[in-house]
Amino acid sequence: MGLVVQKYGGSSVADAEGIKRVAKRIVETKKSGNQVVVVVSAMGDTTDELIDLAEQVSPIPAGRELDMLLTSGERISMALLAMAIKSLGQEAQSFTGSQAGVITDSVHNKARIIDVTPGRIQASVDEGNVAIVAGFQGVSLDTKDITTLGRGGSDTTAVALAAALNADVCEIYTDVDGVFTADPRVVKKARKIDWISFGDMLELASSGSKVLLHRCVEYARRYNIPIHVRSSFSGLPGTWVSNEPLVHETQQQGEQQVEQALISGVAHDTSEAKVTVVGVPDKPGEAAAIFRAISDAEINIDMIVQNVSAASTGLTDISFTLPKADGPKAIEALEKARTAIAFDSLRYDDQIAKISLVGAGMKTNPGVTADFFDALSRAGVNIELISTSEIRISVVTRADVVNDAVRAVHTAFGLDSDSDEAVVYGGTGR
Amino acid sequence: MGLVVQKYGGSSVADAEGIKRVAKRIVETKKSGNQVVVVVSAMGDTTDELIDLAEQVSPIPAGRELDMLLTSGERISMALLAMAIKSLGQEAQSFTGSQAGVITDSVHNKARIIDVTPGRIQASVDEGNVAIVAGFQGVSLDTKDITTLGRGGSDTTAVALAAALNADVCEIYTDVDGVFTADPRVVKKARKIDWISFGDMLELASSGSKVLLHRCVEYARRYNIPIHVRSSFSGLPGTWVSNEPLVHETQQQGEQQVEQALISGVAHDTSEAKVTVVGVPDKPGEAAAIFRAISDAEINIDMIVQNVSAASTGLTDISFTLPKADGPKAIEALEKARTAIAFDSLRYDDQIAKISLVGAGMKTNPGVTADFFDALSRAGVNIELISTSEIRISVVTRADVVNDAVRAVHTAFGLDSDSDEAVVYGGTGR
Repeated sequence: MGLVVQKYGGSSVADAEGIKRVAKRIVETKKSGNQVVVVVSAMGDTTDELIDLAEQVSPIPAGRELDMLLTSGERISMALLAMAIKSLGQEAQSFTGSQAGVITDSVHNKARIIDVTPGRIQASVDEGNVAIVAGFQGVSLDTKDITTLGRGGSDTTAVALAAALNADVCEIYTDVDGVFTADPRVVKKARKIDWISFGDMLELASSGSKVLLHRCVEYARRYNIPIHVRSSFSGLPGTWVSNEPLVHETQQQGEQQVEQALISGVAHDTSEAKVTVVGVPDKPGEAAAIFRAISDAEINIDMIVQNVSAASTGLTDISFTLPKADGPKAIEALEKARTAIAFDSLRYDDQIAKISLVGAGMKTNPGVTADFFDALSRAGVNIELISTSEIRISVVTRADVVNDAVRAVHTAFGLDSDSDEAVVYGGTGR
Repeated sequence: MGLVVQKYGGSSVADAEGIKRVAKRIVETKKSGNQVVVVVSAMGDTTDELIDLAEQVSPIPAGRELDMLLTSGERISMALLAMAIKSLGQEAQSFTGSQAGVITDSVHNKARIIDVTPGRIQASVDEGNVAIVAGFQGVSLDTKDITTLGRGGSDTTAVALAAALNADVCEIYTDVDGVFTADPRVVKKARKIDWISFGDMLELASSGSKVLLHRCVEYARRYNIPIHVRSSFSGLPGTWVSNEPLVHETQQQGEQQVEQALISGVAHDTSEAKVTVVGVPDKPGEAAAIFRAISDAEINIDMIVQNVSAASTGLTDISFTLPKADGPKAIEALEKARTAIAFDSLRYDDQIAKISLVGAGMKTNPGVTADFFDALSRAGVNIELISTSEIRISVVTRADVVNDAVRAVHTAFGLDSDSDEAVVYGGTGR
């Protein structure tokens, strides 16, 4: 008998029907001999509706109170889910983040988990209950106030609980069948990945793949908790994310495994903008001054590229990418620092896309980079920036060619599935 | 500087506009030099909507989970109210029942408060905050589970917090201007009562007056917390409920006070039914057997009347009233006990009304009872049952004459106001 942590997102519990469907699946898992802990998000659009209400009463809702407000969303879904499970004859109890021992720092709206003390959860499952835990929320160690974990918080709750409970697996149920070799909305022949390493998944997540967030994968890797991403609609096996492929998975996969060891997939991201600082004196300290100004404005940047300086002028250009939302703040910060950093001008470009090829295999295959650029070139895609890691290569291109570029790369690396049917989408069709 | 506990019901915070209006009133109270603790109910119909959802996923929602679900309602209203107050420049913090130290027993859906440990609330107001507390909810001492207090729970929360914080007054804001000498929907000339004793208020509450529930008044009397019932719409002074009239109140009232000392008001109640057990052997133990059967079915009864037995048969009839909802259960319990209690037959009548005259003055005024029956008789109202206490006299009549009966009694005891204008209703007109 194992202990399974399952996480269901808002689209899986959007209404009473969804809750009843999820309840059935949970009861099946329990009946097949497992202890089950469930982490649940707020129903459908509840969180957005609550934020709307908050903005109606206050132009800038206070962080502590916004967290108090938003955490009512999971309270509703978890209580309803526990009721639905009990009405199927299986005992169940719901717990808030606080009751489940999810201890965080005090940064409202984006708190970080600092400890998980799941004594009540362990006791509840030991008594034969399914324990339902509110995702996305915790309680501050210092202030005892209710906190929320920010974007992707429910996935992180699930992995953190799985780690604290020493669970056998953390199942993340979503509205797609798993992690794909590319975004199936863009690449019709994208293939569901049966297994992917934590390392490759981290690179995919930070390169624009939205199925799992970087933060959640990072947590799972640190505590070595296998994640199984799968659809709450189809019930098919999804994608396993772990250190090593599970034995039964590799057996199933056969030949396919050979390819997947090389290249996991192609990710793209159109949520970033590019800032170029033109005419920076090419001497020690200038780059540091630029990125100090950016970091003081609390902006996270992604790629950084510095051109070779022109010998005639001793000036260079420095480009970096950052979330579009932070663009105006970055420009403002740099303009303020203009007297200290003697640059010529600033350029801001939000019509860019980033395309990334990810795979642990590439570090021992020098041909991968060449094949990647070759595929882009044949598709007529111009490369503006390049950045590499040991298991990833990313380029920045114009935004309007991103779909062509992703398809070209996907085909070039033999990732296309043999038939369109391999790409199955879950209930909502999204 | 005093400490004021204010309670706002669901109709006062039904939408964003209502929340902002209430926030303004709270800030005014704070600015006039008081420490302010606010107890708030769920917005408008939230609780009903949540119960609907629960019934969609489970035919009989589990008590523990229903409490978890329903308590999200106050979490939403209290967080929004705190935000609205903060956006007016006044610091505020919201607290769940559990955070506010409302400790209850473990009876889900109708828990009783067993202790209040308001350390966090006291600390919050001492720091200059307005503390907003979720009404209607607490945490079980034994199981640490979230509980709800059942009907009128938010009023009880307010009074209990006022007692624990040693508050100067507990203000109950509602959608009417206070407690009236009769239900103003029935008696156009009903008068707002400026002051009423705990004792009279308790009798009114248990006789059908719905402004304050018996439970809340009982709590306030035990800890001697003055209650001020008033409208959140009009801002006018309402009704004070306390041991002794406050000095400034009696000065205002002048002559009127004399009358009010005699009779506080007329209450009526059409929510009860009457059960008559016909042909009960008039010997020791028979009545006890009947009411043991009823109490074993967990039914609370109200009036009990036993007729003088007919000398010829040695049989008597016993009648009692009870909430209509418990009628079928009572009949079932008595039928089951039929062999043990040798009665002839059962009669069940749900077309009754109870009319009660309440006033501490009546115990020293023997004429009151005669005047009461006289007024009813002149209005052509037949009396079916009579029951009295030291400060109350109640009769049961046919349901269809209740309005005529209440008006006749109200006029006979000089309770009518001089003009219709004295009866002012708050915003919703209800």
